[in-house]
Amino acid sequence: MTDSQVIPGGITAAKGFQAAGLAAGLKPSGAKDLALIYSETEAIAAGVFTTSQVRAACVDYCRQILQSKNSIRAILCNAGQANAATGAAGLQDALDSATAVAQQLGIPPESVLLASTGVIGKRIPMAKLTAALPELVASLSKEGNENASRAIMTTDLVPKTIALETIIGDRPVRIGGIAKGSGMIHPNMATMLSFITCDAMVSTHLWQEMLSRAAQKSFNQITVDGDTSTNDTLIALANGQSRTPTITELNKEGQKLEAMLTEVCQYLAKAIARDGEGATCLIEVQVSGASDEASARQVARTIAGSALVKAAIFGRDPNWGRIAAAAGRAGVSFHQEDLRIQLGDFLLMDNGQPLPFDAQAASNYLKAKAEGAYLQDDTVVISVCLGNGSGVGTAWGCDLSYDYVKINADYTT
Amino acid sequence: MTDSQVIPGGITAAKGFQAAGLAAGLKPSGAKDLALIYSETEAIAAGVFTTSQVRAACVDYCRQILQSKNSIRAILCNAGQANAATGAAGLQDALDSATAVAQQLGIPPESVLLASTGVIGKRIPMAKLTAALPELVASLSKEGNENASRAIMTTDLVPKTIALETIIGDRPVRIGGIAKGSGMIHPNMATMLSFITCDAMVSTHLWQEMLSRAAQKSFNQITVDGDTSTNDTLIALANGQSRTPTITELNKEGQKLEAMLTEVCQYLAKAIARDGEGATCLIEVQVSGASDEASARQVARTIAGSALVKAAIFGRDPNWGRIAAAAGRAGVSFHQEDLRIQLGDFLLMDNGQPLPFDAQAASNYLKAKAEGAYLQDDTVVISVCLGNGSGVGTAWGCDLSYDYVKINADYTT
Repeated sequence: MTDSQVIPGGITAAKGFQAAGLAAGLKPSGAKDLALIYSETEAIAAGVFTTSQVRAACVDYCRQILQSKNSIRAILCNAGQANAATGAAGLQDALDSATAVAQQLGIPPESVLLASTGVIGKRIPMAKLTAALPELVASLSKEGNENASRAIMTTDLVPKTIALETIIGDRPVRIGGIAKGSGMIHPNMATMLSFITCDAMVSTHLWQEMLSRAAQKSFNQITVDGDTSTNDTLIALANGQSRTPTITELNKEGQKLEAMLTEVCQYLAKAIARDGEGATCLIEVQVSGASDEASARQVARTIAGSALVKAAIFGRDPNWGRIAAAAGRAGVSFHQEDLRIQLGDFLLMDNGQPLPFDAQAASNYLKAKAEGAYLQDDTVVISVCLGNGSGVGTAWGCDLSYDYVKINADYTT
Repeated sequence: MTDSQVIPGGITAAKGFQAAGLAAGLKPSGAKDLALIYSETEAIAAGVFTTSQVRAACVDYCRQILQSKNSIRAILCNAGQANAATGAAGLQDALDSATAVAQQLGIPPESVLLASTGVIGKRIPMAKLTAALPELVASLSKEGNENASRAIMTTDLVPKTIALETIIGDRPVRIGGIAKGSGMIHPNMATMLSFITCDAMVSTHLWQEMLSRAAQKSFNQITVDGDTSTNDTLIALANGQSRTPTITELNKEGQKLEAMLTEVCQYLAKAIARDGEGATCLIEVQVSGASDEASARQVARTIAGSALVKAAIFGRDPNWGRIAAAAGRAGVSFHQEDLRIQLGDFLLMDNGQPLPFDAQAASNYLKAKAEGAYLQDDTVVISVCLGNGSGVGTAWGCDLSYDYVKINADYTT
């Protein structure tokens, strides 16, 4: 898509960004649970947040900040307590967190954005959080990506991080990011947090537009279990430190920047789906032939989110009937006699009718993907064509395993 | 709601109806797989069918029959093959099934309705089906409820059947029914089949209206896994053999009949949810305080369908945070500071904030419900109040267990 290259450094790859992460004692496990992302200079900020009616205090806080102010210096994220459904006390905790970290950094409190993840209804142990801030701020560095990416994890098995670089106006421009899943992942953001940093110079309005479109094609196209959370947050900072000319419209440079941003978002979104609770493989659903892109994306999401499809993939069962059924109930109109379904290289259905195929070989394809989990070859590809329209769309999910149930049956207890 | 009484007989309780069920060899297991419901006289018929774009041949067949003809004599149902995504050949199989059973019964083929359930994309072994028809027709009787209710089962653990009786115009009127689940159960019908018989005299148009409304408050309010199927079918016959005056409007008698029909549908719907694949308890979600009934029903369905809520209940974990999160993402507007959540007698949240409660006692409540499964006391009650509106609605679901994954990971293989 772009000529961008993967570079090391993740969230600190872009010029002028530092990060840190440590264990403040917020997680009972003693694992890292407090992350800080810091821009050495003012950065513009764009955000996409949960659409749920029940929202965490930090979401309301960030929305309010971004409405009145565009330049941000830091993002503080705690893991362990969602600080959602915590009422006025929870909002006060959020304000106090921002004030405390701002004081340590020597910046105004309104230059701080916040994110939380963890158990809903639990307040943040504020004494522990504030006690950890001096060390957190002191440990900010260009090498902080690993610690920060681990400190935002909950039930995630692996940290998720990426950075890309491209050339705009003869100068290198970088976008890096970190993200966490891994249950409650579904279109419209789910319990996912992602933070992105960029050193391009870009106008605030355009940066928000680019982020919203990129989220539409990435984070809003992944599903683990159909549950959207109270805390979903995607924040992207851009501090202009690459010293490229300001991008104010979707010209060649603007398109290049948006393509790289979309690529970063899609990488992180797929990493979240791949690490879905109990998942053994990544499922990519490619839909074509729809009347428009929105319809194609909707069908792709419905298939990727079907519990029956997910359970069949876990069972290494090439059960195309469930794929057809999920497509049929997606709320998108098509003629069933046009339906074509492919699993990897196996054409399972054409013209709405099943074709003979080697079921054992198809099952082996699914087995091979699961055994390749966490390597590059764990992606089960389902391709569905609905008819003759030009709309295409992709969604990502994971299989439904015993471990999903196990993980979610005793999270608080 | 009504003064109706439970009576024996199920689908044959109403006057003039007979039923039969046997093993025709359609299921590999050798279990009963072919059911016939027969009205000794002409019966009017109402139907509600899947809204999926991918539909079984029998669904298209029934829709066509009901558009042109209102009097029906028989319903033939096979289990084992869904006869969906089987193209023109599948439709021909459906037509041939109707013709063959009509011949045995000595009635026109268009007096026969059809239903199928089982693996999608599999055609019905027609030779086995037609070979079994003489014995099936010969075994029609008033005692056929047990066999018929078993012959429509797939992964169901128990047959589902009920009959009620009330007095209309000094004469007894009966409604009976059978149903099957148990995976792929979700609002808008899912893989569920239900057949209902009634001996009231009622106008065709009103009967269809009553059935549609009853389905809205029952079968469309249950969810097992969010998957809607290709074969969902609800058919209700009324043959007038109770010799009551014809009910043509929603007067006192009409309301009484509709109330009893709704009660039958709700009993069967709950039986389906209770027998959801791998379920250990029934979850009833009662929502109040919504702006209207549709909003209340939508929130109730979303909570009952949340994988995270379902997994928490299976884990005997009173995780009200997930209930709040599911309510928040239901697409219905409310103020989170008004939210009130109760689990059984435990008030967990009020005014949008968590309350202290005895978590161990609440967990024991959930344990006790699971241990009472298949008795009358297996219902976990979640009550949610959204605010001050007058809209109320109820939905039913089941918990998400290891066994759900096990059952669905290897259904075809």
